[in-house]
Amino acid sequence: MRYAAGGGKRLRAFLVLESARLHDVAPAAALDAAAAIEAVHAYSLVHDDLPAMDDDDLRRGLPTVHVKWDEATAILVGDALQTVAFEWLAGAQLDATRKAELILRMARAAGGQGMVLGQALDIAAETAAVPLDLPEIKRLQALKTGALFEWSATAGPVMAGADPAPLARYAAGLGLAFQIADDILDIEGDEAQTGKRVGKDAEAGKATFVSLMGLEPARAEATRLVEDACEALHPYGALAENLREAARFVISRRS
Amino acid sequence: MRYAAGGGKRLRAFLVLESARLHDVAPAAALDAAAAIEAVHAYSLVHDDLPAMDDDDLRRGLPTVHVKWDEATAILVGDALQTVAFEWLAGAQLDATRKAELILRMARAAGGQGMVLGQALDIAAETAAVPLDLPEIKRLQALKTGALFEWSATAGPVMAGADPAPLARYAAGLGLAFQIADDILDIEGDEAQTGKRVGKDAEAGKATFVSLMGLEPARAEATRLVEDACEALHPYGALAENLREAARFVISRRS
Repeated sequence: MRYAAGGGKRLRAFLVLESARLHDVAPAAALDAAAAIEAVHAYSLVHDDLPAMDDDDLRRGLPTVHVKWDEATAILVGDALQTVAFEWLAGAQLDATRKAELILRMARAAGGQGMVLGQALDIAAETAAVPLDLPEIKRLQALKTGALFEWSATAGPVMAGADPAPLARYAAGLGLAFQIADDILDIEGDEAQTGKRVGKDAEAGKATFVSLMGLEPARAEATRLVEDACEALHPYGALAENLREAARFVISRRS
Repeated sequence: MRYAAGGGKRLRAFLVLESARLHDVAPAAALDAAAAIEAVHAYSLVHDDLPAMDDDDLRRGLPTVHVKWDEATAILVGDALQTVAFEWLAGAQLDATRKAELILRMARAAGGQGMVLGQALDIAAETAAVPLDLPEIKRLQALKTGALFEWSATAGPVMAGADPAPLARYAAGLGLAFQIADDILDIEGDEAQTGKRVGKDAEAGKATFVSLMGLEPARAEATRLVEDACEALHPYGALAENLREAARFVISRRS
């Protein structure tokens, strides 16, 4: 579990900590929530990398869990990483009502109506006769990666009992821009820098934002989405500068 | 998810509902908790049946999820069944502090210090040079099946803010007796009645209560454990008669 949760950009944890800071949430509770979302993210990667799913042998520059150990271990490691996320949320020093709300939102974001549904749609698309179109890809990504981004960015207001709407709008733009950038990296990226296999999508004949829109229009759309995400932060003024930088980072990153 | 959660004895749900009734917990909240524990149990079966784990193709008299669909689906179905359990607990109509306690206990019982640790030990034992001895088997079973039994039987007092100790003692005896009965059924049982493959343990050369104690001593130990479980219910008097019957049922069942 420790191996699987190591490394990575910690972008989701960063979103939790920044959104918590904007709402004066106690750092200890914010750290529990940040650790929880990274555990959920790590669980999803371990299971996604399994031979029956994406069959990846490299993740964050290291052998995936089922390669380093075996498939049974990878299944159980993913299972227990999901559980520990809920353990950390349930044990957080936080008003109990807001904590229950945070847990409920996590379950909705991660489960069969959120991330896992997105993964199931993704797998179904691989064997479908007709490739996904742009609205379908947008829906898939909103579920598969967007739901956890939204949970992360809204954790602060939820823990503080404040309105999560501005940060939810920020997360929607950020999540989609992040995914477009991922599709671009799969084409232009370098395995040594990204720490994962590249060129997978084209190899699999998979519909992506780039294959559907073309490279330059996709890049322009990502820029527009980041601008909208930054605009959503208006109510927070200069305090949200870190989040604006993060949004610009996701489309300029090389890994 | 619906297919995987169908059928079964609903023993864990029954324990939740009975322990809730003993503590005057509102039926709606008790039903949420009962559904949650059955979802966790179903998730554990779906993943346990995978080719990389126990590789079973029959469960509750029907093809297992990865046989009826495929492995990717079975992984995701198990993942989302775990998540929905936490969703139902988090959404239950219950005092928020007690709800957080119930969720925390679920995570501890199901995760890497509970059920999943038990499964990992079970898999490790299969390839170990030396078979497990009786104290090791007891520890393994206390984790693998005992932790969820304890959660179920103590859900009532936890939801009511009462002392869970008597029902925890009941669950410990019940859980171990249940496992011994399972080992006996694997030898004496009938595939048509149990709805799952039998004779697996002996085939795998696996240490069980029966292989370590012998058939009749194992049966006597199960009876003693059930008597102790029933004795633990003393504070509840005649109100706990259903739970006593359930304890007697687990060692007389044919499936």
